[in-house]
Amino acid sequence: MKEELKQVLGNGKVKDNISELQQHSEDESSHDAALPDVVCYPASTEEVQTIVRIASKHETPIVSFGIGSGLEGQAIPVCGGITIDFSNMNQLIDFSPEDMTVTVAPGMTRTELNRTLNKQGLHFPIDPGADASIGGMTATNASGTTAVKYGSMRDQLLDMEVVLMDGRVIHTGSHAKKSSSGYHLTGLFCGSEGTLGMITEITLQVHGIPEAMEGARCTFSTIDECTHAAYQVLLHDISIHRMELVDKASIKQVNGFGGYDFPEENSLFLECAGAKAEVEAQIEKLHEIMQDAGCKQWDAASTTEERNHLWKARHEMSTAFRHQHGKGYFGTDICVPMSKLPEMVHFARELLDESGLAGGILGHVGDGNFHTLIAYDRDSSQEVKAAGHLNEQLVYRAIDLKGTCTGEHGVGLGKKKYQYREHGEALSVMKEMKYLLDPKQLLNPAKIFE
Amino acid sequence: MKEELKQVLGNGKVKDNISELQQHSEDESSHDAALPDVVCYPASTEEVQTIVRIASKHETPIVSFGIGSGLEGQAIPVCGGITIDFSNMNQLIDFSPEDMTVTVAPGMTRTELNRTLNKQGLHFPIDPGADASIGGMTATNASGTTAVKYGSMRDQLLDMEVVLMDGRVIHTGSHAKKSSSGYHLTGLFCGSEGTLGMITEITLQVHGIPEAMEGARCTFSTIDECTHAAYQVLLHDISIHRMELVDKASIKQVNGFGGYDFPEENSLFLECAGAKAEVEAQIEKLHEIMQDAGCKQWDAASTTEERNHLWKARHEMSTAFRHQHGKGYFGTDICVPMSKLPEMVHFARELLDESGLAGGILGHVGDGNFHTLIAYDRDSSQEVKAAGHLNEQLVYRAIDLKGTCTGEHGVGLGKKKYQYREHGEALSVMKEMKYLLDPKQLLNPAKIFE
Repeated sequence: MKEELKQVLGNGKVKDNISELQQHSEDESSHDAALPDVVCYPASTEEVQTIVRIASKHETPIVSFGIGSGLEGQAIPVCGGITIDFSNMNQLIDFSPEDMTVTVAPGMTRTELNRTLNKQGLHFPIDPGADASIGGMTATNASGTTAVKYGSMRDQLLDMEVVLMDGRVIHTGSHAKKSSSGYHLTGLFCGSEGTLGMITEITLQVHGIPEAMEGARCTFSTIDECTHAAYQVLLHDISIHRMELVDKASIKQVNGFGGYDFPEENSLFLECAGAKAEVEAQIEKLHEIMQDAGCKQWDAASTTEERNHLWKARHEMSTAFRHQHGKGYFGTDICVPMSKLPEMVHFARELLDESGLAGGILGHVGDGNFHTLIAYDRDSSQEVKAAGHLNEQLVYRAIDLKGTCTGEHGVGLGKKKYQYREHGEALSVMKEMKYLLDPKQLLNPAKIFE
Repeated sequence: MKEELKQVLGNGKVKDNISELQQHSEDESSHDAALPDVVCYPASTEEVQTIVRIASKHETPIVSFGIGSGLEGQAIPVCGGITIDFSNMNQLIDFSPEDMTVTVAPGMTRTELNRTLNKQGLHFPIDPGADASIGGMTATNASGTTAVKYGSMRDQLLDMEVVLMDGRVIHTGSHAKKSSSGYHLTGLFCGSEGTLGMITEITLQVHGIPEAMEGARCTFSTIDECTHAAYQVLLHDISIHRMELVDKASIKQVNGFGGYDFPEENSLFLECAGAKAEVEAQIEKLHEIMQDAGCKQWDAASTTEERNHLWKARHEMSTAFRHQHGKGYFGTDICVPMSKLPEMVHFARELLDESGLAGGILGHVGDGNFHTLIAYDRDSSQEVKAAGHLNEQLVYRAIDLKGTCTGEHGVGLGKKKYQYREHGEALSVMKEMKYLLDPKQLLNPAKIFE
């Protein structure tokens, strides 16, 4: 098979030396690494079709790989086979500033994309923290801090080109901003984590760079007050740009890690974006809402420097937990209806305290999505078990409260055992669709489904 | 079969007198009426399952019916069979104001829903004009004037309960605001027009009633200037609530029909909504943008009365064309990338002029979606043909420009012949999914697919 791949694609695009295989054996999650048999670097849709045909012939698994920043093991080739690394398919295919649309190959990263867009006064706002590839973000329906305003990755997509396992190449949508034509394949392939087809082109809706941005940080005595204040913002239908809950423990951790001096209190980090006068009005209203909600301290971040400082700290929080010498790291990712957030955050804090593990809580509080960041000793089977137990308890509770086991990280390896509990009979329909498009089960096997 | 239905459901829920059949033979479109064999009024998911089982046994078609306000014949039972009228399944199932979510049965209409929501300071903003049922709006991915801010029906959905043809009942999502868990079945069933399953429950994200709203009307010498001005608004990332293009002919028609005295010029109807200070800032910015874009006349609609006057006129425009004595009526529904809108609107005007038909152009200009409203003589085969030709030319051009044949009305009967042209090979994937879930082709047959 390797020889056949080399013959057709050329030696330079097919690699099987050990360092290549190792580089494609893991992601940013705590899941065990696994080596692919071979790594291919296609340069075109046609070359992806070729790889798919060869894989089909040899009944070999195919796994897509973006930049490896996934958090649930989606890119780990647990059954071996071919890993397709999309880093050579990273070009700008079409950019229409007047339509606010852009078409890119899947290997382009979001900061590369923004460099192009920014020159035309536009930006792509989805920000999962890591400089992920657009293909990876699409495959996992990523989101992050700006989802409260812009939604998730799925909400940005207009069209995708997808290579199916039988070699067909389809387009899932059009470049129109809305459509009621045909079944919504765009939504279906987004979030399918490489299990239904290989995404080879992505057309996105982009946005004007806001004329102005202003941020603020406010502290509360309790987490309940934080979530209540956030709810008031939503109720006023204020088009907030970011609204993040950061618990006391996380502030403390990042202060130590990054030399910040934020007050060590349960906090909301806020940001508004838009026309200057609109933003000023929003910030004023927010301040009023926060005061009514019992805010102890309000610190405006009006300058770009102050805002960057704020969000740099926010993004460093997972790193602050992650990069503790000799420690393993793990982040939960549940999402629940808004009103259940205080209860869930309490529960997470209780579980953390009971477990004896060090950890903090960070939340995309406008969406009901939060992460419990846990540092544990990899060599202590007790701590490993405790971390797993904490995750499972949170997942069970979230599903009981009509929430989801994953708000933005995806299913991959870590959440597949909860799929039946969350989806019930619908999981059988998903399996039937998987079987319809991939009857030999070669596309990213052992992901999503057990 | 009718006897079996009556036996199981009771006489009161199964009707086959001619007036019942006629009431369920047509919608608001110009497509030919067709009678069902029988109309059932189930009161529960279990009764829908029962009907599905009987239909499957007798290999009889099933068609869903909301209130019959569809515009592409989706509810017309062209192959006869059972029509399921959901008007007895119109209850509020769950309402969680603190989560801003609501679960309703499919027969509830959007104004009924808003009556409940408004009492809690919330509203459901999607407004297709007609007082459609939530089930019908979900099945066709409806939208309307507020899509520029809130998106289409699909963007509001969190979960659906669906009865499948084999009797399984599934839930497509959860009540979490975002999720990366499993395949996006919610998106797939939304817009499937009753061809994949029967939607029996719908959970929606709702929104806070904006503290303030302000509207404005501005006139331009040319349609190009209108669309250019609209584009500037999007570029400034102003969170506009409604932005409608209304051409000179449509203003003239509605002035005559409803006794309005709007200046008979190409116009934009605008509305901002949000916190008071925010709206004031937005309106000021909009005024500035409109002036820079060459606006001839700016008329603010600051009071509720003035705003209602504006939107009443906007909603009466299709009625103004529709209710001309002895005339047939027809509306196109293409949607194209923003920059192509001026070209398309020009083209539509040219086609109208060439055809000799009376008509106007109305557009959800923030989305690139517009309707050409055509009144024609039903008895003149030449006029009927001319109206069809105009529609087809617009559809072909829209697809060539990477747009869609239907922005919000759906495929139904009228757009199915354009599906291959728009979707290409992807249509075969859609057909395979249809066959997977409805192997006997009993769910709304002869819709979407030829």
